[in-house]
Amino acid sequence: MNASEFRRRGKEMVDYVADYLEGIEGRPVYPDVEPGYLRPLIPTAAPQEPEAFEDIINDIEKIIMPGAASPACTELETVMMDWLGKMLQLPEAFLAGKAGEGGGVIQGSASEATLVALLAARTKVIRQLQARTPELTQAAIMEKLVAYSSDQAHSSVERAGLIGGVKLKAIPSDGKFAMRASALQEALEQDKAAGLIPFFVVATLGTTSCCSFDNLLEVGPICKKEDMWLHIDAAYAGSAFICPEFRHLLNGVEFADSFNFNPHKWLLVNFDCSAMWVKKRTDLTGAFKLDPVYLKHSHQDSGLITDYRHWQIPLGRRFRSLKMWFVFRMYGVKGLQAYIRKHIHLAHKFESLVRQDSRFEICAEVTLGLVCFRLKGSNQLNEALLQRINSAKKIHLVPCHLRDKIVLRFAVCARTVESAHVQFAWEHIKELAGDVLRVEKE
Amino acid sequence: MNASEFRRRGKEMVDYVADYLEGIEGRPVYPDVEPGYLRPLIPTAAPQEPEAFEDIINDIEKIIMPGAASPACTELETVMMDWLGKMLQLPEAFLAGKAGEGGGVIQGSASEATLVALLAARTKVIRQLQARTPELTQAAIMEKLVAYSSDQAHSSVERAGLIGGVKLKAIPSDGKFAMRASALQEALEQDKAAGLIPFFVVATLGTTSCCSFDNLLEVGPICKKEDMWLHIDAAYAGSAFICPEFRHLLNGVEFADSFNFNPHKWLLVNFDCSAMWVKKRTDLTGAFKLDPVYLKHSHQDSGLITDYRHWQIPLGRRFRSLKMWFVFRMYGVKGLQAYIRKHIHLAHKFESLVRQDSRFEICAEVTLGLVCFRLKGSNQLNEALLQRINSAKKIHLVPCHLRDKIVLRFAVCARTVESAHVQFAWEHIKELAGDVLRVEKE
Repeated sequence: MNASEFRRRGKEMVDYVADYLEGIEGRPVYPDVEPGYLRPLIPTAAPQEPEAFEDIINDIEKIIMPGAASPACTELETVMMDWLGKMLQLPEAFLAGKAGEGGGVIQGSASEATLVALLAARTKVIRQLQARTPELTQAAIMEKLVAYSSDQAHSSVERAGLIGGVKLKAIPSDGKFAMRASALQEALEQDKAAGLIPFFVVATLGTTSCCSFDNLLEVGPICKKEDMWLHIDAAYAGSAFICPEFRHLLNGVEFADSFNFNPHKWLLVNFDCSAMWVKKRTDLTGAFKLDPVYLKHSHQDSGLITDYRHWQIPLGRRFRSLKMWFVFRMYGVKGLQAYIRKHIHLAHKFESLVRQDSRFEICAEVTLGLVCFRLKGSNQLNEALLQRINSAKKIHLVPCHLRDKIVLRFAVCARTVESAHVQFAWEHIKELAGDVLRVEKE
Repeated sequence: MNASEFRRRGKEMVDYVADYLEGIEGRPVYPDVEPGYLRPLIPTAAPQEPEAFEDIINDIEKIIMPGAASPACTELETVMMDWLGKMLQLPEAFLAGKAGEGGGVIQGSASEATLVALLAARTKVIRQLQARTPELTQAAIMEKLVAYSSDQAHSSVERAGLIGGVKLKAIPSDGKFAMRASALQEALEQDKAAGLIPFFVVATLGTTSCCSFDNLLEVGPICKKEDMWLHIDAAYAGSAFICPEFRHLLNGVEFADSFNFNPHKWLLVNFDCSAMWVKKRTDLTGAFKLDPVYLKHSHQDSGLITDYRHWQIPLGRRFRSLKMWFVFRMYGVKGLQAYIRKHIHLAHKFESLVRQDSRFEICAEVTLGLVCFRLKGSNQLNEALLQRINSAKKIHLVPCHLRDKIVLRFAVCARTVESAHVQFAWEHIKELAGDVLRVEKE
């Protein structure tokens, strides 16, 4: 939607809200629908082609308003998470469907998704061990629990361990910054020999520093064999998996217990919207639900009634699935795929510009929209270049450390980015690099 | 703001966004301001009288845009939390000011605030004990930690204990559903004798069931004496403390380490916006911050630079303080006070209508906007009445249990509620009560 259509549609929306406020006394105070009313009213998958805005807005009055905030808020979320899961070709087990054991939920951030997964895994292993050995206390078990992630994982993984009160160990990544079977297996053997209890692994697809990918097809089977919960954090990269040509990066997801990525990062849905799926929703609710006995009802785990408050840290919820519904329909799957492809194309364009300049080097494989590069030479030189770039304020780069090297990160991520912007950025970087190299020689 | 002004202002806002999008290439990519730039640009306290919408919207371009998302998002939040703290007459120690040790942060929900406080208290006590006895493991300490709240506390308190991996004990409340010194002291003595380590107390001001108030002036000194973290959960009631005549309900807050209420519940700020203050920000950041050594800088705890990501569970943040800024200025403190007073006045009106009908009884003291009432007689009778009311769908009531009684809760909470709505609701309830009582006699 361009700015001029936004003017028109935005004002229509303001009128809709004002009309609602003016007419509120004529509306029912409580919805008159049955649980599960919404799913049959909308398609089972996202449209391939964009839909007309009128059709979407008309559905608000027809489909959402009769279900008001509840149950519409919950039911649309369940169906949108199914739509999105299908776009990614997630295994059926992660979908709620009509009677599945899995399903999706919108969290606020990938940090929360990781924490929620860790807490669910913690509860599960404690219950399992106590069922076998009733005299074991929770504290005695927690003291021995150990979780794993790659040394490239986001700091929020370490934080989840801190909050959950369990050890977290960093597995050394390989030359391509990926977690591999051998390193994980080695840590496991050591820890088990020391009497610890491995219970949780976070695999990252698209690390923050350089967009590297842990080797799921190696890590997954180990998690199965050792009965550890596997959580996949694909916060940034996940959006790309809606393109068939990038879906292979998600191979191995079938080994996971939970999977998360952030549509608010790269799928045109405004912050916040972090999509999380689990294979067994009872694992999640088991960790958070209080008094499960008196709350039990026949439809509890059927997908018909979902109490999302048991799936997350906060109690209250916003109606975030509306953002997904609008975006998926306004763009269509094809429109979203085109958007992802354009960014990746522009990242490769930048990569090839860098490669043509022998003063520079590419520091990690360019798979999606991130290009890690640097001036050949010292870290000091690259710090000087970064400082010039960010002081000039024509573009903005956030650096990272890859092993002992300081690396500049060029991230293609704006909604309206064009080839000319990338060209402009590269000319600008080249010019400042020239200045830095001249100063060094003097 | 009525619907017709909303039409006008909403459309101006749509144009502002569209203009921004169309002119984005002319804006700097990175703000050109120094940390602490914002505080001197705006008043030190909320206005008493409403301000003109033009003045507020003009300040967006003048004050927010030059600071863009960062640091404006952080700095406005710190100042708005100071504004709000001053409205409540919170002790100076809770404010950030220019160089305070305390300060406020917006959380998503009271559940998160309670969890964050519990985790901070947990970290603090573990560090204290390990400093004294280095051979104590974290698990050995956690096994003995015990937290307390009233038996009327919200279920999210129990949930925080579950997530934090510590015991939580419910203190029996008194005849007015309040936690008192004697019952808390008794539990403490028992637990200490059993070798447990009391470390955390949640006092509730305005419980969910009946809006009762724990006795802070009794509980506070015990927490000080026993060196326990005192967290106050005033999720609903907190908004009323901006009125001088209700401020006494907050007396004793000076004993607390952290305090929380939800402006999104009753202060006209849209969901979500949960306001939390701490006396020592380092207690909070100590629980979440990783690698505190390499992140240290001279202004770290000065109030000049605040890293809110260390104050909360998620990493990402939305610009929620804008909502507070707009609401506080559009209403002025006097307008907000008038809004609170109107609701409380209408609740007392409903209370007096109930008291005039001898078939009914009032079940808890009416202090704010909630009236707990029931038909004199059996629970069955009241369940029948509730069912009729909620099936008729003219009004909607959520019940609660007070001890062994089922109680109906009349909550005055809509923005546009008027005396006529209360009158209508009561006539409707009376009529349905008549039906229920007739059926019972037959």
